[in-house]
Amino acid sequence: MIGVVSGLLPGGLATPATVVFADRLEANLAGMAAFAAEERLALRPHAKTHKCPQIAGRQLALGARGLSAATVGEAEVLVSRTRAALAGPEVEDVFIAYPLWPAADLVTRLGKLAERATVTVGTDSAAAARLLAPLAGRVAVMVEVDCGLGRSGVPPAEAAGVALAARRAGVQVRGVFTFPGHSYRPGAAAQAAADEAAALAEAAAGLAAAGFGTVERSGGSTPSARLSVPGGLSELRPGVYALNDAQQVELGTCSMSEVALMVAATVVSRPAPGRIVLDAGSKVLGPDRPAWATGYGRLADWPGARITGLWEHHAVVAVEGDSPALGETVAVVPNHVCTAVNLVPELLVADRGQVVDRWPVAARAANR
Amino acid sequence: MIGVVSGLLPGGLATPATVVFADRLEANLAGMAAFAAEERLALRPHAKTHKCPQIAGRQLALGARGLSAATVGEAEVLVSRTRAALAGPEVEDVFIAYPLWPAADLVTRLGKLAERATVTVGTDSAAAARLLAPLAGRVAVMVEVDCGLGRSGVPPAEAAGVALAARRAGVQVRGVFTFPGHSYRPGAAAQAAADEAAALAEAAAGLAAAGFGTVERSGGSTPSARLSVPGGLSELRPGVYALNDAQQVELGTCSMSEVALMVAATVVSRPAPGRIVLDAGSKVLGPDRPAWATGYGRLADWPGARITGLWEHHAVVAVEGDSPALGETVAVVPNHVCTAVNLVPELLVADRGQVVDRWPVAARAANR
Repeated sequence: MIGVVSGLLPGGLATPATVVFADRLEANLAGMAAFAAEERLALRPHAKTHKCPQIAGRQLALGARGLSAATVGEAEVLVSRTRAALAGPEVEDVFIAYPLWPAADLVTRLGKLAERATVTVGTDSAAAARLLAPLAGRVAVMVEVDCGLGRSGVPPAEAAGVALAARRAGVQVRGVFTFPGHSYRPGAAAQAAADEAAALAEAAAGLAAAGFGTVERSGGSTPSARLSVPGGLSELRPGVYALNDAQQVELGTCSMSEVALMVAATVVSRPAPGRIVLDAGSKVLGPDRPAWATGYGRLADWPGARITGLWEHHAVVAVEGDSPALGETVAVVPNHVCTAVNLVPELLVADRGQVVDRWPVAARAANR
Repeated sequence: MIGVVSGLLPGGLATPATVVFADRLEANLAGMAAFAAEERLALRPHAKTHKCPQIAGRQLALGARGLSAATVGEAEVLVSRTRAALAGPEVEDVFIAYPLWPAADLVTRLGKLAERATVTVGTDSAAAARLLAPLAGRVAVMVEVDCGLGRSGVPPAEAAGVALAARRAGVQVRGVFTFPGHSYRPGAAAQAAADEAAALAEAAAGLAAAGFGTVERSGGSTPSARLSVPGGLSELRPGVYALNDAQQVELGTCSMSEVALMVAATVVSRPAPGRIVLDAGSKVLGPDRPAWATGYGRLADWPGARITGLWEHHAVVAVEGDSPALGETVAVVPNHVCTAVNLVPELLVADRGQVVDRWPVAARAANR
């Protein structure tokens, strides 16, 4: 039996192959763009998910105000290649949503980048803000606050102190930002969205009291994006929504039919009853597995199957009853699409069962 | 305070940077080569760990009989580039230690590869063995058996059946192989080594009874390699030992001073007491974290520190007392070196605090 999704894969693929379904991608991009427009939120999609100028260009064409990036390198690639890739909009506005430590080489690179686009960087310390002084007038900052994830970002009450350090360094402060990443647990997204709004409100009030006026309040994660508290944010930065993944399916953020990236894999072994082995392992799916996930990804056409073990080139799948045959191609949904994309040099773009394009993962491994 | 290992890092590195300490690598390679020679085991290091012709060449120069690879693509890269990289030994013998599903494109590629090297592939089904018939006389097989991991490989008693299918297809059977990967739990390595020897003995006896004579018995994982049962194996296939990683340290397989690959990272944030954030996340360390590990890798100079959270570009480290300062460079040991190497285009080779070479990860993402 060939499953419905596996049937959408182009025939004769050499596996493992990382495939993007063009129609699903477009629907995801358009859906979030429409949501942001309705809610009057500026949309600044996080490009770390796809690292791909073709997708970035489409996000801009659908109305995104600019892009988010995780590193200076990602921003450089997206600014230089997006127009070339799509003959579409230039990336004119990029926010490196990360508490950069502005060492000398990064200051130099940011200065060059700022000649071609509006550049904002994240900061969460007075010490980092001071190091941005050579970029005064060329690069702006957003102050990162922690809304409950316990990663980077100062407590909201301390945001004004960091903003004042940036001002003393001559650097414009655009606002405050946070990542409500504690939305990544079943049932946690609404509370994370409430925490996000509260933290941004407190931080923005602190900046207002310190004389910064009304500032940008930027937040968003894919699980929490559509639960954002009305009026709580001015800017939304989801990334995963463009492609989706098994985590989002299991969190209830999207349905399996909204997953736009899958890995075509072959059943290479059926060594024992109830167990099959696929040629898609951690070097193509990514080893991510949160404790609450049912496995290391999902088989799109086999809802009862569970990827119980993952090695570099083996996925061990527990199956019951009817299951894929030896040599059969199946569509695997990675747990975390951002790390899966980063593992391959290009994405195969599929439309109506044909490979219609190949998009380089242009910002792959752009870790600085 | 600059720690001992961080002090070995070349100065002024742009982080995150993946660094190999040349002296430690050489000691690891020489140590395993000496062990194998003493035990009269043929050594066939697994190249999936380093994917790097320079390291492969050194392994061969130290007496390895050939290489193991996980995919046809890895084997192709290593066969074509190892001599060029080192002016050293050619890769003349490669074993793809994986139960390949021999689709038409792979049969074609294996045929070409066999013009340049002795090629053996793994198989664990009669169906796969039959598909190798076009390669009869050019490519040999090893039959995979499961010794307790529960991944691929038939039960030892079934090995002879697969071997007979290969013989009927005209394909030479070199022997049997297994991966005692259940050695990857604290205290489990000795039992895994015993299981490995027992499974290989049973499978080899089955082949002898079926008229195959005395065959190769290939096994080995880094945790179990030095615990191999005397006389149980004829060939050893460890991979990680070349570089080592935090998993091996925590399993007790090696000491921290034997870890030859580290990721230089910068402290980018100290947002709250007891918590620091590094710029080395899952896109450079790899997200691997077995349940028994103390965290997502280790800080070489800070034995009490624990990487409690890992995102794509953030490592959150719980620290007590003295801890690295904002902006300081620290040396991070990934949990699983095989996935960490696969994330970067090149390895920086350090010797006495200097970058002395850059080795391309030539077989990176060679997933087919």
